[in-house]
Amino acid sequence: MYEDRVRRADLRDRIVSAEEAARLIRDGMTVGMSGFTRAGEAKAVPMALAERARRDPLKITLITGASLGNDLDKTLAEAQVLSRRMPFQVDPALRRAINAGEVMFIDQHLSETVELLRSRQIGPVDIAVIEAVAITEQGGIVPTTSVGNSASFAILAKKVIVEINLSQQAELEGLHDIYIPTYRPMRMPIPVVEPESRIGLPFIPIDPDKIAAIVITTKLDSSSTVLPPDDETRSIAGHLTEFFLHEVKQGRLTNTLQPLQAGIGTIANAVLHGFIDTPFHNLKMYSEVLQDSTFDLFDAGKLDFASGSSITLSKTKYEAVLPDLPRYKQRLILRPQEISNHPEVVRRLGLIGINTALEFDIYGNINSTHVGGTHMMNGIGGSGDFARNAYMSIFVTKATAKGGDVSSVVPMVSHVDHTEHDVDIVVTECGLADLRGLAPRERATVIVANCAHPDYRAALTDYVRRAQSRGGHTPHVIEEALSWHARLRESGSMKAGQAARALAS
Amino acid sequence: MYEDRVRRADLRDRIVSAEEAARLIRDGMTVGMSGFTRAGEAKAVPMALAERARRDPLKITLITGASLGNDLDKTLAEAQVLSRRMPFQVDPALRRAINAGEVMFIDQHLSETVELLRSRQIGPVDIAVIEAVAITEQGGIVPTTSVGNSASFAILAKKVIVEINLSQQAELEGLHDIYIPTYRPMRMPIPVVEPESRIGLPFIPIDPDKIAAIVITTKLDSSSTVLPPDDETRSIAGHLTEFFLHEVKQGRLTNTLQPLQAGIGTIANAVLHGFIDTPFHNLKMYSEVLQDSTFDLFDAGKLDFASGSSITLSKTKYEAVLPDLPRYKQRLILRPQEISNHPEVVRRLGLIGINTALEFDIYGNINSTHVGGTHMMNGIGGSGDFARNAYMSIFVTKATAKGGDVSSVVPMVSHVDHTEHDVDIVVTECGLADLRGLAPRERATVIVANCAHPDYRAALTDYVRRAQSRGGHTPHVIEEALSWHARLRESGSMKAGQAARALAS
Repeated sequence: MYEDRVRRADLRDRIVSAEEAARLIRDGMTVGMSGFTRAGEAKAVPMALAERARRDPLKITLITGASLGNDLDKTLAEAQVLSRRMPFQVDPALRRAINAGEVMFIDQHLSETVELLRSRQIGPVDIAVIEAVAITEQGGIVPTTSVGNSASFAILAKKVIVEINLSQQAELEGLHDIYIPTYRPMRMPIPVVEPESRIGLPFIPIDPDKIAAIVITTKLDSSSTVLPPDDETRSIAGHLTEFFLHEVKQGRLTNTLQPLQAGIGTIANAVLHGFIDTPFHNLKMYSEVLQDSTFDLFDAGKLDFASGSSITLSKTKYEAVLPDLPRYKQRLILRPQEISNHPEVVRRLGLIGINTALEFDIYGNINSTHVGGTHMMNGIGGSGDFARNAYMSIFVTKATAKGGDVSSVVPMVSHVDHTEHDVDIVVTECGLADLRGLAPRERATVIVANCAHPDYRAALTDYVRRAQSRGGHTPHVIEEALSWHARLRESGSMKAGQAARALAS
Repeated sequence: MYEDRVRRADLRDRIVSAEEAARLIRDGMTVGMSGFTRAGEAKAVPMALAERARRDPLKITLITGASLGNDLDKTLAEAQVLSRRMPFQVDPALRRAINAGEVMFIDQHLSETVELLRSRQIGPVDIAVIEAVAITEQGGIVPTTSVGNSASFAILAKKVIVEINLSQQAELEGLHDIYIPTYRPMRMPIPVVEPESRIGLPFIPIDPDKIAAIVITTKLDSSSTVLPPDDETRSIAGHLTEFFLHEVKQGRLTNTLQPLQAGIGTIANAVLHGFIDTPFHNLKMYSEVLQDSTFDLFDAGKLDFASGSSITLSKTKYEAVLPDLPRYKQRLILRPQEISNHPEVVRRLGLIGINTALEFDIYGNINSTHVGGTHMMNGIGGSGDFARNAYMSIFVTKATAKGGDVSSVVPMVSHVDHTEHDVDIVVTECGLADLRGLAPRERATVIVANCAHPDYRAALTDYVRRAQSRGGHTPHVIEEALSWHARLRESGSMKAGQAARALAS
């Protein structure tokens, strides 16, 4: 059985149940699991581990590529299996445990986790659990819908558990390009010079003796939770399109733009989707997650090639694309997230990076992660890898949240993930601010005028005026800089009137 | 005359006075000048320009490598020549003008300025003014004690003024390695694979027809303002040495460490100087500015090779090293700052980066630039290029400033230049905090215990406790997070008692 999926014969007697495989994971271990943006995560073994922990408590450090699907982070958090978690997550139950201080969450640039492991500054990884479509004749592991950190986990771990997922298309084989940088300080350049560059192997090469267990599974990836474009995200896309047309007119870009990166989520997806109705053509992507919009752009004849670390689609799109994979395969590569997000490659290719902000301030500093400056939402993910090194770094957000009670443009962000040095363009549905070559005082003027919601514009203008009267390169009324967040916490709204009403009542 | 310094004969009739050359610079122009950390700046032409501006006002955008010596930024600021200035400065008079909003200062990662120019996102450079020891037979420009952005300025500008400085040693020729990355998206890997890699030319290659004027000068570079090690900087060096010895013992580093980078300034210089009395050997540097400590380490037999973008020395060291240059030359390279600081190379080589903080917070976020969150000190310089991409990113500072009235460890930094993601180790004279693999709550505990000055430790511990009682991944009492800075502004001290006394009086 499974001859086509476990092609190396001597490994077939290592096929065991998920429960049996999970027994290899012991209390206190560091476990590296496949999975990136709800794609290609190991499914049966973590479920079995959570099941066991309910009877027989244990704690592990769990490292993945990025977020997991199938409610795995929820299940593991609720079974209290996680003592430490890195480098990214999106689950409400795990988020609650992180913010309560029950799970130590280490929020990392996605390209850096395996560098830290490789140099033994964190870790070591005791065991890796990797979802695969197949094990090759040589014992190589063929990943499924994501690569993430799986290759380095398998290479660095003492033991590897492979979950062969029969529901994942066998045709995924050949899509992956596994290249691992050499050790420092003797490292050679990473030879990616265009999104199409194939530089590695189509499987993860490890000593087959390290494969300690193989588990057969059939559960599908979870669908993407990205929402379809709405009026506001369409406006954001419209502002960006207009901006790019202007750049083309000025001769700074051509109609093929530069290779595109877009962060995960509704707004970035909508922006890319918006390129369908533009004169831009022969586009390429060099991104981390390939979403619905990637395939919409392929189908519209706009996109020539897409490189990523995972494919995360809505249910409808998944059912359209996956059975039709051979049609797209020649125009796709999935890479380790270390390579998809590598500063060296991002800078070399000259990406246009489009990422989502939770809030930004009048000087263009970005908060991507912390609600109210304190509570973790998801994590910085790959946004820092891209924003710092991109040809052009763009951040998008809706101008308000919580029905208008929260302004996404604030005097000072309550947490900084990206400094103004790494931010060229900010966009809301109200407009776009081009910050290139501007000093902080100039940035404040254009951000307030172009991006702030009308409900907050007067208050921001007043803040800017009073701050500037105190002087400074980056003027602030320091005792008032975070007062909008304090007001929100107390009254439920950043609006001064609301606060006054709340205090009066 | 000047046959050995202007070796291309047909250029010799372009030799003019500084005043005449300065006339090529007109109101509204963008000017790119050589100069990096007080080394190798053009000297006579900017002086003549300031002189002229006093009679006949004009404004320019001035872009350099980094800071200028010979009080040039002061002279230009006082003559009101500067409308815009980038990417770095250290001058008190210019600083005053920046903080008053009179000069628009654009504070950039030092590796990025020429990327923005090359892609025409800022600029264009109308004219370049470059200090040189010689012009070669082919018309190539041989820089002096710094490369900085000079090569790209000369290549991108419409016209070039060359200042031949007869006081700069002719033996500097051969020290430089000029390599400019190709245009994106068709860029090839930058082939630096070790600090010693020579990948370019020993001169800046431009069309000699662009050389519009040559000026002969004799003024020396200014001396470094770095102070000698004191008790506190020696303690900081001691903590770091102990830490590195521990890393070697753990097998994570060898006694040759990784290539070293150290930011400009007294503390980083003292830390490097401290390596003289350690078992570390065969060290290499891949840094931006080579200071006294580089040559101390050469002389002590500790250092094998140093790559930088400039040489900035104290008067004593300058007089010892420069006449003896042939002795050091085979172990030195000066590169464009784009290459000395390039994310691709920094990450590949796996640098240990040591940079100076103005203040850091309980979570390890770093403020390198803004006093009180508003007033520019110098600029971010290359610290971001190195901290983000290093094998290990270290920040050092004294635990207090202003005679103890300012704590360098605060609840929340008033300005963020480096986020906690980019900070592995923080050190004060009180101790060292190893933040690798720690979640924010854990970081707070170790930073307060190890790095805070005893005068502020109880207040920080109290803040941490009250913040954690509110929950969150990165707990804060948001309305109080910047209160230490507000108190300093009002009472002249971060100490609560001082503030109470000031309010009572």
